[in-house]
Amino acid sequence: MPRYALLIEYHGAPFAGWQRQNDQPSVQGAIEAALAKLEPREHTIAAAGRTDAGVHAKGQVAHCDMEKEWDPFRLSEALNYHLKPAPVAILDCAMVADDWHARFDAVERQYLFRLMSRRAPLTFEAGQMWRVNHPLDADAMQAGADQLIGNHDFTTFRSSICQAKSPVKTLDALQVEAVPHASGTEYRFHVRARSFLHNQVRSFVGTLERVGAGAWTPDDVGKALAAKDRSACGPVCPPQGLYLAGVKYPTDPFT
Amino acid sequence: MPRYALLIEYHGAPFAGWQRQNDQPSVQGAIEAALAKLEPREHTIAAAGRTDAGVHAKGQVAHCDMEKEWDPFRLSEALNYHLKPAPVAILDCAMVADDWHARFDAVERQYLFRLMSRRAPLTFEAGQMWRVNHPLDADAMQAGADQLIGNHDFTTFRSSICQAKSPVKTLDALQVEAVPHASGTEYRFHVRARSFLHNQVRSFVGTLERVGAGAWTPDDVGKALAAKDRSACGPVCPPQGLYLAGVKYPTDPFT
Repeated sequence: MPRYALLIEYHGAPFAGWQRQNDQPSVQGAIEAALAKLEPREHTIAAAGRTDAGVHAKGQVAHCDMEKEWDPFRLSEALNYHLKPAPVAILDCAMVADDWHARFDAVERQYLFRLMSRRAPLTFEAGQMWRVNHPLDADAMQAGADQLIGNHDFTTFRSSICQAKSPVKTLDALQVEAVPHASGTEYRFHVRARSFLHNQVRSFVGTLERVGAGAWTPDDVGKALAAKDRSACGPVCPPQGLYLAGVKYPTDPFT
Repeated sequence: MPRYALLIEYHGAPFAGWQRQNDQPSVQGAIEAALAKLEPREHTIAAAGRTDAGVHAKGQVAHCDMEKEWDPFRLSEALNYHLKPAPVAILDCAMVADDWHARFDAVERQYLFRLMSRRAPLTFEAGQMWRVNHPLDADAMQAGADQLIGNHDFTTFRSSICQAKSPVKTLDALQVEAVPHASGTEYRFHVRARSFLHNQVRSFVGTLERVGAGAWTPDDVGKALAAKDRSACGPVCPPQGLYLAGVKYPTDPFT
């Protein structure tokens, strides 16, 4: 069976997350249903990152197995046709080796978190950013973020329901970018690692927002990390600012 | 009665346009209803541009008259509170002279049109751009746009229901900006004039899209203008890519 890699964008709001569930809409379920319109049978696809309810993706990668050999462009067009009106779009599609795996072959996940400081409620980006109405200090947030880079036991920044075998991970990047808007300032957190613990990015951003607001010092972030204690974490921030931005493989399947 | 200028952002989708109507939701009606929560009586506000159904604003300006003297910041906060959950946000508020008029004192309106060329349906920007799935030639669109700059009889680019006394207007700018995205190319049309005819920007963009697609030459735009005939216009494009981006006054009321 030929295997295809799919580059996927989705708005997380209408979904209970990536993972297929019996009683709630999921991104995986939506794509599998579209595949079943093309080849009527049960489909099971695997993705690089299993995003939570409300979390978005700009560059999720999954793979699917087909009976028929499809032209990749036609496969992406047919899936987009059958996905309508769900806010899920197949941006690219490529044939890959039979043993290529979207999850196990990934060597890096990239997340983006969009945090907006502005007084007025959001209109165009409602549900696509976390808004706070107080000012934030980008330099302080970056100083706090710098304490998290490297190989650490991230127990503090890990959900109690996380299923990873070990809390030890290597965080490769956590860059805070300030983007001025006419009506406020957006802070974009660019986060990169081989893999993440459950709720790790939202635990980071929720904690760093406290630093930006002046309630925590940057050094408090290092102390929270060293505590290896979930109760030392700042508040976990809401999901609607989080995007799975991209996935890296030893060889990019889409070029 | 003290008069206040309001800087307003809104998503046009849920509204039948700016102008108050008896039987349909309007942006004007939403803001007047919020004002009535603060000072219970009939309110009538005036805006610089009366946007059509589905058209957005990032920088609409209106004025309102209040009985009480309000701190401008508190007035904007109170309006935003009462506007929820409508996608209308008061970005700024300033006290102005009693005879200041949002519409009659305006010396320039700025519009933005967002046109996206990409194969996949839109997710995050659904309803906020006009999407076409073929490639477009930005240089050709700019060459066509250049033929429209200046003082002309714009009968060709004017809706048959336009109420302006004269079809002669001066177009100050029509710049086409190509913005690459991961999944396609966005073309932003930046348009400036003292005032516009009804459907003028959508008539421009619909015509220039035909140039970008290769169906029209840039010179065809000049010929359509010279025809002074509504039937010479290209197709009027849909409203969801159009934004009232800003309004200029001899003195900026918000600084």
